[in-house]
Amino acid sequence: MTAAADGGGYLRNAWHVAGWARELDGGAVLARTIMDEPVAFWRGGDGEVTALEDACAHRMAPLSLGRVLDGGRRIRCPYHGLEFDRAGACVRIPGQSAIPPGARVRRYPCAEKWRWLWIWMGEEAKADASLIPDFHWNDDPGWVSVGDYFHVRGNWRLLVDNLMDLSHVAYVHATTLGTEAVADFPVAVRRERGGVQVDRWIVGEPAPPMFRAVGGFAGTVDRWQLIDWRPPAHFAIDVGCAESGSGARDGDRTRGITMYSNHSVTPETQGSCHYFWHHARNFRLDELALTETLAEVTRTAFGEDVVIIEQQQRRLEAARPDRPAIDINADAGALQARRVLDALLVAERDAGGGA
Amino acid sequence: MTAAADGGGYLRNAWHVAGWARELDGGAVLARTIMDEPVAFWRGGDGEVTALEDACAHRMAPLSLGRVLDGGRRIRCPYHGLEFDRAGACVRIPGQSAIPPGARVRRYPCAEKWRWLWIWMGEEAKADASLIPDFHWNDDPGWVSVGDYFHVRGNWRLLVDNLMDLSHVAYVHATTLGTEAVADFPVAVRRERGGVQVDRWIVGEPAPPMFRAVGGFAGTVDRWQLIDWRPPAHFAIDVGCAESGSGARDGDRTRGITMYSNHSVTPETQGSCHYFWHHARNFRLDELALTETLAEVTRTAFGEDVVIIEQQQRRLEAARPDRPAIDINADAGALQARRVLDALLVAERDAGGGA
Amino acid sequence: MTAAADGGGYLRNAWHVAGWARELDGGAVLARTIMDEPVAFWRGGDGEVTALEDACAHRMAPLSLGRVLDGGRRIRCPYHGLEFDRAGACVRIPGQSAIPPGARVRRYPCAEKWRWLWIWMGEEAKADASLIPDFHWNDDPGWVSVGDYFHVRGNWRLLVDNLMDLSHVAYVHATTLGTEAVADFPVAVRRERGGVQVDRWIVGEPAPPMFRAVGGFAGTVDRWQLIDWRPPAHFAIDVGCAESGSGARDGDRTRGITMYSNHSVTPETQGSCHYFWHHARNFRLDELALTETLAEVTRTAFGEDVVIIEQQQRRLEAARPDRPAIDINADAGALQARRVLDALLVAERDAGGGA
Repeated sequence: MTAAADGGGYLRNAWHVAGWARELDGGAVLARTIMDEPVAFWRGGDGEVTALEDACAHRMAPLSLGRVLDGGRRIRCPYHGLEFDRAGACVRIPGQSAIPPGARVRRYPCAEKWRWLWIWMGEEAKADASLIPDFHWNDDPGWVSVGDYFHVRGNWRLLVDNLMDLSHVAYVHATTLGTEAVADFPVAVRRERGGVQVDRWIVGEPAPPMFRAVGGFAGTVDRWQLIDWRPPAHFAIDVGCAESGSGARDGDRTRGITMYSNHSVTPETQGSCHYFWHHARNFRLDELALTETLAEVTRTAFGEDVVIIEQQQRRLEAARPDRPAIDINADAGALQARRVLDALLVAERDAGGGA
Repeated sequence: MTAAADGGGYLRNAWHVAGWARELDGGAVLARTIMDEPVAFWRGGDGEVTALEDACAHRMAPLSLGRVLDGGRRIRCPYHGLEFDRAGACVRIPGQSAIPPGARVRRYPCAEKWRWLWIWMGEEAKADASLIPDFHWNDDPGWVSVGDYFHVRGNWRLLVDNLMDLSHVAYVHATTLGTEAVADFPVAVRRERGGVQVDRWIVGEPAPPMFRAVGGFAGTVDRWQLIDWRPPAHFAIDVGCAESGSGARDGDRTRGITMYSNHSVTPETQGSCHYFWHHARNFRLDELALTETLAEVTRTAFGEDVVIIEQQQRRLEAARPDRPAIDINADAGALQARRVLDALLVAERDAGGGA
Repeated sequence: MTAAADGGGYLRNAWHVAGWARELDGGAVLARTIMDEPVAFWRGGDGEVTALEDACAHRMAPLSLGRVLDGGRRIRCPYHGLEFDRAGACVRIPGQSAIPPGARVRRYPCAEKWRWLWIWMGEEAKADASLIPDFHWNDDPGWVSVGDYFHVRGNWRLLVDNLMDLSHVAYVHATTLGTEAVADFPVAVRRERGGVQVDRWIVGEPAPPMFRAVGGFAGTVDRWQLIDWRPPAHFAIDVGCAESGSGARDGDRTRGITMYSNHSVTPETQGSCHYFWHHARNFRLDELALTETLAEVTRTAFGEDVVIIEQQQRRLEAARPDRPAIDINADAGALQARRVLDALLVAERDAGGGA
């Protein structure tokens, strides 16, 4: 294969994370570009979230700089005062009674779930809220979750590659999450439920620093990294550790500890993306100091990925289109995911573009 | 219509404001790009202002970094010392006596008037100083004027649209100049003297905060906004207020107060422009505190427009060319101005491009 | 001629300066883009310097962010841990024993000489270290040299033009190195040893401030500027001064003082370059204060050139392709150098591109 940087387009008939739910608190209007389109988000007094094209039907002024009215039922353009309802229809034009046909902005299906905001950029009729992928770990009393958002100057698929192959943990996160042993253990790749699953077991090795710290492991441990990817870019990753011989490798992980390292990536432009993640644990729930430590460690670690990815993006953009690139064994999961994505993109394009 | 962002070119056979006269004080050389061309301005000891192409005929070094010689009669290139006279002719080349043919830079007709610098980017033979539009309010003992300059990352015509329709005052300047009532009153549009005039009367409404403050109006007032636009982008706007029933609406505005809100916009590139404005009053002339307040209020208000326009520009550049846009009643003046400008641009192009 | 800004490509079969040798001290890995290609440099424990393509064969992650192993014999990719030897061959892939064919990055011939790092971007078979141009003044016990590096947002050939014609010293460096007299004295241009030589003698003039300061000249002096340019962009410039009548003009410069002002320019992109320079003297060697003064004066002076060149570049990029430009007598050397470079570039292109 070659290293071409075309990014392969966007998958529009799918749910994407648009933000943290808390970004709408206090009546804030959130402006965010998704798949090259500016979008304005707000939450009404009744809790309903609206996502409209962030460009007035009149002269493209940003609605996100305008004012939310009537408990969130309307937004008023900051420039000439046109008002739009939650469906994107213009319902008032100052100084005139008639509303011209076509006076509307695009409305995007959206939802608030698992403490994240979700948006559907494709055909509205297909936007089924039950398709929002499971990230309950981020909003579950049995788990404590920490998380954040990074803006990344790289194509979203570079992060899919990144997260499908955790051998990088050994190198990128050598001082945070990793141990070098990781990359030497093989992975098993499955393709189920429309996504790809990658399992890696690191058996009979000393525990890395983080597990020693949070789990008190002294001797050798069996560790697992169980990646569950659902297209376009949703990752639930079960990362855990148990004492060697405790039965974890044979299916009984109850005597170990586990954390979910979850990620979701949304295209902003061909060369940039929004990276949302959270990290959840189901033990020592009340220990605030541990929560703060985990928040800091994961923020540092995922920031290390961003540095690499932004440099990759620059090199891909500058490379000759025929610049060769090799694949390695550890890519097995990433290559499966690429194939799934390519097929979905082709299918959507053939069906009319998803919008 | 659609939202295309082509900007429609430049009108070259016209006077444009290039700067504030004070920018040349103290022997300063001003470098400013106008219609994609770098220009160097300076004032001689005899008061004469010169505008030359800001790129040496030899290797394009910026003359504006050079030295003005002989009381302003010549400028010397900072790189190899070539000297150019006020007509743009090279008159000295160090180390040689002969001046090659073609050793010249473009000279632009320019003038200093109404405390502004003016430039003519088109055919020199047509540059008639008597065509400089009237902005006497900025240089008249009967008026006190405050003003400033903004660099705006938006096409100049977005500001023409902005200033032809003051219904935006109700929304953009809700906390400074506006009241919401403005947008509900209709405008009358005329087309005289090569430009477009837009009159709006707001009758029998409470005075907005600024008029209450500067004019002491307690009850209801009749207000006017009388826009006089002259192409390409010169605006004299008579903004005033009188007690309701004092005869203002019938033509006798002498018992009210008035301020002139004047604006002139000059293209820098297709995506950016120079925005000059001043605000003049003919009452309470000696009150310095009032002058300072008006300077601050207007600077704040016009800066609010810049925010909107820069966002518009970004959206126009990113929009699909067929993205629809609607017009509203309040656009009547702006649409007339667009028609005048389009016709002038076509005429200039047909006649050979203006340069 | 016209002012076109195409930059004329790169000469690849030639040695270019890539950095100061000291940039590799302490085990540092240097990342620098040369001719649009990212390169990683490091020095092994045995002193050997390696230059590899700074993009992993796998996913283009920057090797320069990785770790040097085994005393410098290998570098490990920071992303997935692939290791490359000094020849650019991949010698380890974590988690697998087989190395796929094509698992390599480009290796560039490089060397450390005269306290500079050198790189050969063209055909490896032609990289003969004996062709590295002489800059011994920078690494010679008989000379004290000061120097630095500037990143310049301008095409490398603008600096060749700059350095081939020192008449600019009179104007750009009027307050540092120059006197206005320089530009009035003619140059003699020769074309020897594949390069171009430009000699200028300024005879019977007062010494400029720098020579008065460092050489104690009180009366009139004879000065020389003897430029020896070797393509693509290597300059050794003998700048000296002797009392008038001491015989210098007749070939005996032993009773004067001399300094070598040496420069080398390397393309980064078509619109930017790396500018390396040093300034060496062979008198008052132990005077540290003089060394510091000369370092400061030359850094200031060459920084003045950078300002001009970056403005030139912007004007060249924005200019119409047919914008005329004149040549002057002082360009004699620069025009000869342009001809040599153009011929070399054509020859290299005809022979297959140098890479």
